[in-house]
Amino acid sequence: MSIPCDMLVFGGTGDLALHKLLPALYYLHRDGRLHTDQRIIALARSPHSRAAFQALAERHCRAQVARANFSDTLWASFAERLDYLAMDASQSADYGRLARHLGNDDKRVRVYYLATAPDLFADIATYLSVAGLAGPKARIVLEKPIGHSLESAREINATLGAVFDESRVFRIDHYLGKETVQNLMALRFANALFEPVWRAAHIDHVQISVCETLGVENRGAYYDNAGAMRDMLQNHLLQLLCLVAMEAPVRFDAESVRNEKVKILEALKPITGLDVRDKTVRGQYTNGQIGGQEVPAYYFEKNVDNDSDTETFVAVQAEIENWRWAGVPFYLRTGKRLAKKTSEILIQFKPVPHQLFGDGEANQLLIRLQPEERISLQLMAKNPGKGMHLKPVELDLNLANAFSTQRRWAAYERLLLDVIEGDSTLFMRRDEVDAAWQWVDPILQGWHQHYQRPRPYPAGSDGPEQAEALLERHRRHWHADRDTN
Amino acid sequence: MSIPCDMLVFGGTGDLALHKLLPALYYLHRDGRLHTDQRIIALARSPHSRAAFQALAERHCRAQVARANFSDTLWASFAERLDYLAMDASQSADYGRLARHLGNDDKRVRVYYLATAPDLFADIATYLSVAGLAGPKARIVLEKPIGHSLESAREINATLGAVFDESRVFRIDHYLGKETVQNLMALRFANALFEPVWRAAHIDHVQISVCETLGVENRGAYYDNAGAMRDMLQNHLLQLLCLVAMEAPVRFDAESVRNEKVKILEALKPITGLDVRDKTVRGQYTNGQIGGQEVPAYYFEKNVDNDSDTETFVAVQAEIENWRWAGVPFYLRTGKRLAKKTSEILIQFKPVPHQLFGDGEANQLLIRLQPEERISLQLMAKNPGKGMHLKPVELDLNLANAFSTQRRWAAYERLLLDVIEGDSTLFMRRDEVDAAWQWVDPILQGWHQHYQRPRPYPAGSDGPEQAEALLERHRRHWHADRDTN
Repeated sequence: MSIPCDMLVFGGTGDLALHKLLPALYYLHRDGRLHTDQRIIALARSPHSRAAFQALAERHCRAQVARANFSDTLWASFAERLDYLAMDASQSADYGRLARHLGNDDKRVRVYYLATAPDLFADIATYLSVAGLAGPKARIVLEKPIGHSLESAREINATLGAVFDESRVFRIDHYLGKETVQNLMALRFANALFEPVWRAAHIDHVQISVCETLGVENRGAYYDNAGAMRDMLQNHLLQLLCLVAMEAPVRFDAESVRNEKVKILEALKPITGLDVRDKTVRGQYTNGQIGGQEVPAYYFEKNVDNDSDTETFVAVQAEIENWRWAGVPFYLRTGKRLAKKTSEILIQFKPVPHQLFGDGEANQLLIRLQPEERISLQLMAKNPGKGMHLKPVELDLNLANAFSTQRRWAAYERLLLDVIEGDSTLFMRRDEVDAAWQWVDPILQGWHQHYQRPRPYPAGSDGPEQAEALLERHRRHWHADRDTN
Repeated sequence: MSIPCDMLVFGGTGDLALHKLLPALYYLHRDGRLHTDQRIIALARSPHSRAAFQALAERHCRAQVARANFSDTLWASFAERLDYLAMDASQSADYGRLARHLGNDDKRVRVYYLATAPDLFADIATYLSVAGLAGPKARIVLEKPIGHSLESAREINATLGAVFDESRVFRIDHYLGKETVQNLMALRFANALFEPVWRAAHIDHVQISVCETLGVENRGAYYDNAGAMRDMLQNHLLQLLCLVAMEAPVRFDAESVRNEKVKILEALKPITGLDVRDKTVRGQYTNGQIGGQEVPAYYFEKNVDNDSDTETFVAVQAEIENWRWAGVPFYLRTGKRLAKKTSEILIQFKPVPHQLFGDGEANQLLIRLQPEERISLQLMAKNPGKGMHLKPVELDLNLANAFSTQRRWAAYERLLLDVIEGDSTLFMRRDEVDAAWQWVDPILQGWHQHYQRPRPYPAGSDGPEQAEALLERHRRHWHADRDTN
């Protein structure tokens, strides 16, 4: 059982709050994971009454939560936790009102969840402090993007750091809340089988792909300023890379795990100068088809500049300069409006040193986050019958099936409970954000300096052909599902 | 397509011929694998006519071959290949008749399949030679057991060797014809993933178990003279051990593969003196229950001595003295009237050097031949939800499902075709048999010298408790299927 806590959600009527946070909190409530005295207070500008907000929350939770898991009785008890305060987070004066609303209880943990535009992060932290709301029991939760560049990220982190010490800042990356991502740590550090081969001597390369079929939807204004590099690669993909590549931590606790992750980020070989052209690919979708439906080009999307040169696709060949990984390319790619929705990590092993039975393929370990959570190991087996002819086969673990008796936690459930309990193992530390930006910034600058505009790719394709060429020059290919036989 | 060939089956009306060889040849015929001119000539003492033998063969094939695969038309064309000659294989005089029956065609390959009692092997070879039937195109196929001891095996092999040079002697071990057994070679030498961990540094121990539920059935007279060590361990289990342990052969051909296997047999640490007591367990079943049915004790079986001290169960802790395997126990066990019918090889990896997430189990690779052909890899994964708690999961490859579109070859089909084509890769070479007996003989002698009588175990149990103790003293256990969750 958890501790008594107020969770205050800035941006409390926004998409993130209504679609993700409240349903996750409802599930935690249902599973008896929340303290009886846990309160959830939404903060936003709209002049809702508490009852009106409860009705709004109920409508969204009913839509988000599986019908079998939703009950009116449970909702009634959950709704009692919900409160609403109309305030303008950009106005210092409103924070006094917030303080009065909360009352003067220093013993309660207060979690400020900033589900707002990132340009408010620094102000909110400062105003909370001014209003005396940032005491030693206060915690702050931030969503990406943290900054727009190394410089702006440092500014935000410095402002936050002046108010909250690092142990109380929770930079959320919901990828780290996914079961399969945590399973990557279990796979590596709870199984003796993989450690001896998890290194440059045995691994040819690694691929990390996060492919979406969606376009920018209603996030055009934000996205056109960010692009795929800042929106996805700087955070989610680099976090996955850290988990694949890091050394075993001293202990499984927040500082030890993050010490190892930051070492990987610091070991990333800088991509500067001509390498920006050779080792990165930018793309932007043009019109095309997704699931048989015509969809418009990126530059026709709502709130997007008609002449935008924002990338909606990025592929990078990264390298880690340490003993374990020197010389092993880590190919990262992410994009919108691609042919298939998949998130996966591919560990491509080297071929056998000598082919005893004729041509065989090299082993692969595929860790898939989307569309299903699955770990599969591709091996070569003997084709039945006469002779010794090889055929690839897959040893397969479908995590959803393996644990079918247990409900799958959504990433936000896990992470919200961690915040309430003060466990920051699965959150990004300040130096991690800094190191990630240090590596990303020169690429962004290189694109700008060399006028490297995004390559067009049709919506519904696999991205620009240059992304394929990035691997092909070393006779490698992006992983694609084998047709089932 | 194969070459024209006469296959002569000594013991042509026996169980092996009627239950295994003829059905396998029928399948090869059906699949177009036999030369149009391939003949099959059964030899036995009964005065059958050719038509009577064809009828006998049809009755047994109809019973053995899956109904969907049996057709009257196909049978009619297969039956034309079948011939019968009544002769007494122990009478030299009868071989002249055989020679006349076959005619004087030196161009045809002749395969003599000795599906007889082993005490006839030497005589048959000699009489074939005398009758001029052992020319350079003649091949001879032997079933286990080859001899009863190192000395008798050497005698048989010397007599055979005087008539047939080694390339024309096919010592069959039908385990080597099983797909999963050959897959063991594919697994090891066509996958780069396993080689680095396939050694003493990473493997705790290996188990090879061949457990039967059947008793001695109608083989009492033979079995009571042989026992589990000679009947199973000396051949099948040691062959499996060789495939698990051998180095990569230079090429995948008969000599290279068998060179590596014999090196393993020669590296087996001798078990002599007190080690016989400490590292081997003999057992003999008493009455008990199999599948709910009462079954009698071994010494009440037909043609078994009432005071028999033949072992129906044997377990041995073997060690291989070479760089790869020094210090890794290979636990072998086989027995009759056990609780479950299973044939499997378990590779038990060492635990992780440091348990980061609390207790986890060490990885296991299970290669199962019976009751289903399956390869499964046990890994530790994260239990869904809060925290990092581990649970064992299995990455599973069911070979029958993986190759469901292809009919499974029976072991004898594969091996008979290899004999016809002259490929002896999957047959035991003379020096292998010799090396296996060299290791087994001192154990048999030790049992005799120390009056080590078999320990009783109830039919339907897991064998004598001393077999469990053999592993328990090193805190290990025989593999048992996990209850499905």
